Amino acid sequence: MSAWVLPDHIADVLPSEARHIEELRRGLLDTARGYGYELVMPPMVEHLDSLLTGTGEALDLMTFKLVDQLSGRSLGLRADSTPQVARIDAHLLNRRGVARLSYCGPVVHTRVDRPLASREPLQFGAEIYGHAGLEADLEVLELAQACLRHAGVRRLQLDLADVRVIDAVLSPVPLPADTVRAIHVALAGKDVPGLSELTKGLPDAVCNDLMSLPGLFGDASVISRARSLLTPSAALTLALDDLQWLADHAAGDDVVVSVDLADLRGYAYYTGMRFAVFAQGPQGAAMELARGGRYDEVGAVFGRKRPAVGFSLDLKELVGAVEPRPLVAAIRSPWGMEPGLRETVAELRAQGHTVVCALPGHDHEVNEFHCDRELVPDPARAGAWTVKSL
Amino acid sequence: MSAWVLPDHIADVLPSEARHIEELRRGLLDTARGYGYELVMPPMVEHLDSLLTGTGEALDLMTFKLVDQLSGRSLGLRADSTPQVARIDAHLLNRRGVARLSYCGPVVHTRVDRPLASREPLQFGAEIYGHAGLEADLEVLELAQACLRHAGVRRLQLDLADVRVIDAVLSPVPLPADTVRAIHVALAGKDVPGLSELTKGLPDAVCNDLMSLPGLFGDASVISRARSLLTPSAALTLALDDLQWLADHAAGDDVVVSVDLADLRGYAYYTGMRFAVFAQGPQGAAMELARGGRYDEVGAVFGRKRPAVGFSLDLKELVGAVEPRPLVAAIRSPWGMEPGLRETVAELRAQGHTVVCALPGHDHEVNEFHCDRELVPDPARAGAWTVKSL
Repeated sequence: MSAWVLPDHIADVLPSEARHIEELRRGLLDTARGYGYELVMPPMVEHLDSLLTGTGEALDLMTFKLVDQLSGRSLGLRADSTPQVARIDAHLLNRRGVARLSYCGPVVHTRVDRPLASREPLQFGAEIYGHAGLEADLEVLELAQACLRHAGVRRLQLDLADVRVIDAVLSPVPLPADTVRAIHVALAGKDVPGLSELTKGLPDAVCNDLMSLPGLFGDASVISRARSLLTPSAALTLALDDLQWLADHAAGDDVVVSVDLADLRGYAYYTGMRFAVFAQGPQGAAMELARGGRYDEVGAVFGRKRPAVGFSLDLKELVGAVEPRPLVAAIRSPWGMEPGLRETVAELRAQGHTVVCALPGHDHEVNEFHCDRELVPDPARAGAWTVKSL
Repeated sequence: MSAWVLPDHIADVLPSEARHIEELRRGLLDTARGYGYELVMPPMVEHLDSLLTGTGEALDLMTFKLVDQLSGRSLGLRADSTPQVARIDAHLLNRRGVARLSYCGPVVHTRVDRPLASREPLQFGAEIYGHAGLEADLEVLELAQACLRHAGVRRLQLDLADVRVIDAVLSPVPLPADTVRAIHVALAGKDVPGLSELTKGLPDAVCNDLMSLPGLFGDASVISRARSLLTPSAALTLALDDLQWLADHAAGDDVVVSVDLADLRGYAYYTGMRFAVFAQGPQGAAMELARGGRYDEVGAVFGRKRPAVGFSLDLKELVGAVEPRPLVAAIRSPWGMEPGLRETVAELRAQGHTVVCALPGHDHEVNEFHCDRELVPDPARAGAWTVKSL
């Protein structure tokens, strides 16, 4: 096979898109910084134990394994940065109060879950550790939206769910783990006949609640419907109250809130509210661009179980959902060693201009940069150079 | 072993250093852009064949190997981005003229060659494809220096060498590959007794040339000394002429040029001039911060052998060689849902300020960000907020 062929679902990012991704990257990091989030850079590889702790089987299957020649131990190529950031919060920073952290870098997956997905997302994310209150959830929701708006996404849809709802519904009956898993799968697929089969023999109240869940999706009024349809309990009321508060405060002129109480994605990972932010894609389809939620258990294995809430997105996915940005035009210059020319070129570059020197023999090439100006000898002053429009 | 322990020579980058690295990263990419270099983003993993082509055994030993579950083929975790960028130039861009490309991202090494080195450098680099003339070499030398100056490095030392010198010296005698390798090792270590042993039986002229090489290092006058000491040949003259031209043009007020004709680092990789840029480190030691040269063969395996010259550096190494930059101070704000407060916070953030909202119960924490101002109710206008110095 040819040396230039890349593995499936792995691609180079070429100049025009790479430039746009870099611009988005800066914008998102600066937006997070504006909220007080500090940048950290966890490594690409670390011990497999540290990468996979408490995150469920799905991440294990997504993670490439390596052997460390120096120690003989198993390493993993990170498939998600969140466990790493939890490790940093728990062990390295070891702050008593709130820590707000952001990160941006590649993650690598062994497989994809969608036909056109990349196995190498460029993951950007932000997380708050140390505050259990809803204010942290709301700040993360706001920041995720601010990031997408900064990137140029318009008309956001915020999808809210909470894993505590299903836990509250199932809490009256002790069920084997297999049955719970099967119920989760049926709910995730809104498989009502399957669910009906699985709930046979359960108490009527639990059965009715489970059969109600697949229909509990739609706008924020779903939360009130859930209150009347589902069997009341303290845990359920708490989860629904939280969702109601977040839905009330996160809605806005350009944000539509929707709720899906049967949404169980990331169940093994999240411990409370989870959300996804969608945008209208170029073909009008809704694209999920950012996802996050509360995962208070994430730091437990590092010896410090702190409240945690955050979100992440893939910049390679995001760049496809927003309008391309125009390239800033450049200045073409001849090659030359004359001090006057070299000084002028250096000054223009210091002012932020791109000056492309045509290497000898390449004067008439169409340059990669769009050059709309040219450096020419100044007719008025010998030895001086001036910028002329092309 | 504890879950938070990282593998040897692998480390997290914590907030203050991460922020500085991010600033340097932007500065270097913008500097390269000012010269007309286009950003590309090759993937972290690709087929091992593509990563290791034509780059010698050293890179093979440095490269982590993986198995692609989707294809069963061997993948490598990139240990160097240059072969990837050569592949992009050869196959994807396929331009007839000059291509200037830059990149910035992690590379991962199985081992280290120095006690305190990282196995995960953050590699930044820039390359010109398609021009065989010295102008491209000079532009790369200049850009490497411009990048280091932009990062805040003062007093640069530019170390020049050329692999064609040793080739010219050895060209009169056909030697077994083993002997050539042993001679290279002896030269690299300036091992004169070893060299003396190895050169026994060689023609006098070759022997004398080889014995002269370990002494041919110092300032640019080494080039003239080489002309009088070494046996003249067309190939030698060309290499020395090129070095002289580059030494003449690359020297400057803050750049000292040195030459080492026995320097064979990267011999398997480079095909002509190679260079390293050193800076005085914090403890006065000279630190090698950037390295590069001409590697015209690099794209051959991708079906397109084009002239190529470039350089790279490790941002994690660079950040240790420059003064820390002061953190821009932030504004502290109370948490609250009042529209007046929220609007003021949003405005300040849009102006580029960092506004850290103290989450309820965390008002008196020492924040990670240095807050030198505080948002307080405006005594003059009810419902309005104003920034007060702390």
